[in-house]
Amino acid sequence: MKSAQIPSTSLPRIVVVGGGFAGLQLVKSLAKHPCQVVLLDKHNYHTFQPLLYQVATSGLETASIIYPFRKALGKQKNFIFRFTEVKNIVPERNIIETSVGEISYDYLVMATGAVTNYYGMKEIEKNSFALKTIEDAISLRNHILKNFEEALLTSDTELRNSLMDYVIVGGGPTGVEVAGALAELEKHVFPIDYKELNLVEMDIHLIEASPKLLGGMSEIASKKALEYLEKMGVKVHLGVSVKSYDGYTVTLSNGETLISKTLLWAAGVAGNPIKGLKEDVILPNGRVKVDVFNRVEGYENIFAIGDLACMITEETPKGHPMVAQPAIQQASNLAKNFKKILKKEGNLTPFKYKDLGSMATIGRNKAVVDLSFVKFQGFFAWVAWVFVHLMALVGYRNRIFVFLSWVSSYFSYDKSNRFIIEPKKE
Amino acid sequence: MKSAQIPSTSLPRIVVVGGGFAGLQLVKSLAKHPCQVVLLDKHNYHTFQPLLYQVATSGLETASIIYPFRKALGKQKNFIFRFTEVKNIVPERNIIETSVGEISYDYLVMATGAVTNYYGMKEIEKNSFALKTIEDAISLRNHILKNFEEALLTSDTELRNSLMDYVIVGGGPTGVEVAGALAELEKHVFPIDYKELNLVEMDIHLIEASPKLLGGMSEIASKKALEYLEKMGVKVHLGVSVKSYDGYTVTLSNGETLISKTLLWAAGVAGNPIKGLKEDVILPNGRVKVDVFNRVEGYENIFAIGDLACMITEETPKGHPMVAQPAIQQASNLAKNFKKILKKEGNLTPFKYKDLGSMATIGRNKAVVDLSFVKFQGFFAWVAWVFVHLMALVGYRNRIFVFLSWVSSYFSYDKSNRFIIEPKKE
Repeated sequence: MKSAQIPSTSLPRIVVVGGGFAGLQLVKSLAKHPCQVVLLDKHNYHTFQPLLYQVATSGLETASIIYPFRKALGKQKNFIFRFTEVKNIVPERNIIETSVGEISYDYLVMATGAVTNYYGMKEIEKNSFALKTIEDAISLRNHILKNFEEALLTSDTELRNSLMDYVIVGGGPTGVEVAGALAELEKHVFPIDYKELNLVEMDIHLIEASPKLLGGMSEIASKKALEYLEKMGVKVHLGVSVKSYDGYTVTLSNGETLISKTLLWAAGVAGNPIKGLKEDVILPNGRVKVDVFNRVEGYENIFAIGDLACMITEETPKGHPMVAQPAIQQASNLAKNFKKILKKEGNLTPFKYKDLGSMATIGRNKAVVDLSFVKFQGFFAWVAWVFVHLMALVGYRNRIFVFLSWVSSYFSYDKSNRFIIEPKKE
Repeated sequence: MKSAQIPSTSLPRIVVVGGGFAGLQLVKSLAKHPCQVVLLDKHNYHTFQPLLYQVATSGLETASIIYPFRKALGKQKNFIFRFTEVKNIVPERNIIETSVGEISYDYLVMATGAVTNYYGMKEIEKNSFALKTIEDAISLRNHILKNFEEALLTSDTELRNSLMDYVIVGGGPTGVEVAGALAELEKHVFPIDYKELNLVEMDIHLIEASPKLLGGMSEIASKKALEYLEKMGVKVHLGVSVKSYDGYTVTLSNGETLISKTLLWAAGVAGNPIKGLKEDVILPNGRVKVDVFNRVEGYENIFAIGDLACMITEETPKGHPMVAQPAIQQASNLAKNFKKILKKEGNLTPFKYKDLGSMATIGRNKAVVDLSFVKFQGFFAWVAWVFVHLMALVGYRNRIFVFLSWVSSYFSYDKSNRFIIEPKKE
């Protein structure tokens, strides 16, 4: 059997599972701590999830929103990486079982994030697209472009419409952003690429079960997002949910049906726990109950941070929102606490979330921003969105490449990465 | 059955199969001709093959060396594209059979390029890597990086060496460039990424059956390339060929064996003809015999250009070299001749090849350039190589992105695109 071959040292070992916003921030912040830091991830790169939708809609190339862990952290002396899938924790033995063998830990930090939540609807899970990984984004991009290539080949109106119409379920940031980006493709790119098609036939449906878009944001943000999308031609269905989808016919809760070969499911996420923990620490939505120090309930040396962690307090009865900011802040706080934990000192600092606000973009010059002291929309909101996302990317290289892509798209109205790249058949 | 649904016009239709250097140039040059131009390709993008080796060795991202046909040509009024695989020509009916249905033509131009030539060695074909498409390059990049991740997991020296050692067969530009790029990864990148490994264990073997590298170039270029590679630690085996490879053991013609899980076969190319032509126009190496107007022998309205075309004349008894320059020049000449052909005029211009010279790069500051009037090597050759390749890329966007990647790599000694991106399992 393989062995993970982690070099032994005299220092305590912190194993971090998952290199998303939380995991990456934690590993970086542990650089000077007297410990060995082992990061495990099933990808060899960090993914900047907020921009996956731009890869899926041909706006950005893959490489500019991902960053190799070994490039980001290779020079950090206490850093060890293993490219592996984690299978199981054995808390009583302080080991974690992975596809590359057992790894022992002194402290374990789970930062495995979230997965798409289908609420048990297997048919939708099987037939729909999701947008959580680079592979998801590439797969959706290939699919959209192949649909249009295929739409050229048929004189059957219904079949053609099923290829040209898109159904997006979930009116959160992902749903809103994908709908907006598709509307831009419809207006500026596809009329040149597919001049043989009548783009009036293309419909983009956005389905949201609640009565408003961007549920986590202010009324004005929701209203403006709706207004922008409708102006861009997106058909927004509020207060409606999806009952079934067989890969062709979408049945809605109001009895209506839509025909489409593409349904993007962005209607929910669930925590992605690792097997082996006591069952009562895992909530029905898959998140793991943690105390104010991000320690998993009932364990001394196991922590959870980011989307996975559900810290139930008076202010946060359902835990923190499953977005980047709490993940990064929890990682920083935990890294500070590790200074004391490694010295076996008590008096840890409880996590305190500083809400920096939220934002979503709908398209060119159109975004909505909610800050605690001001809410604004339109051009300046869009500039703020661009600035914040550029700064949040990992590495100067990716910032420059994304910036140049955006500048070029801004002036050309184009989205350049219209590639169908299929896996090589082995 | 599907139909290709090509719009009918009153103009004659030229069908071009393959959008490589030859096909793309031809389609562009036909923009103002009174004809409909139908381009068929199994990718929806043009691939800049000379830089595939940099994608395979993590130096460049995929998107910067490929360019969507619809972006390049979408505004050209007489241009139609179909994303399809071509199966068969039926010359007597003037139609071509494709995976999207039959397409009739008035004139057919085959620009299907070349495929890897294994000279009938099935075992090598099965177990080796090639470098002709983006999928090949991604597959090789994934493989190299996974090898190193796996090398960390074993204490078995032979197994580890099989993962860290690379065998490249063929001392032409591709072989030389891959060997040089791997040597740079070994020296500058892998010691940081894989600090747990001893990089002295990594061996790069370059096998060339003839007594010199870069067979098509001058003596001084060959000698310098050998000198550069050996200085970089590459083990060059001249006058030696590969007898067999089972995925692990490479047996050489001199009886020696090498152990490696990676063999890159860059030892030969063959023409990639379309089925349905008379057998006697296809040479044993797969190339198609054409006259001085690139017309296929024995056909009035079927042409071949680029790597596929073999124009046997007194100066070129084996046809032109299978590289970009003859392909582009043949396409331009044929486009000019099409002005007359479409008017049913005779007096066509025979093709005349203008040899602009050849070049290959071995690494940072190291390249060899042969021009008719001067041959030079080293830093200035490398600058010339960089300049020529930047200018030859399609589109300003790709030029800028490749330029910035190279500038950044030049100063950092880094190769940033170390991504393992596996196909999504459906």
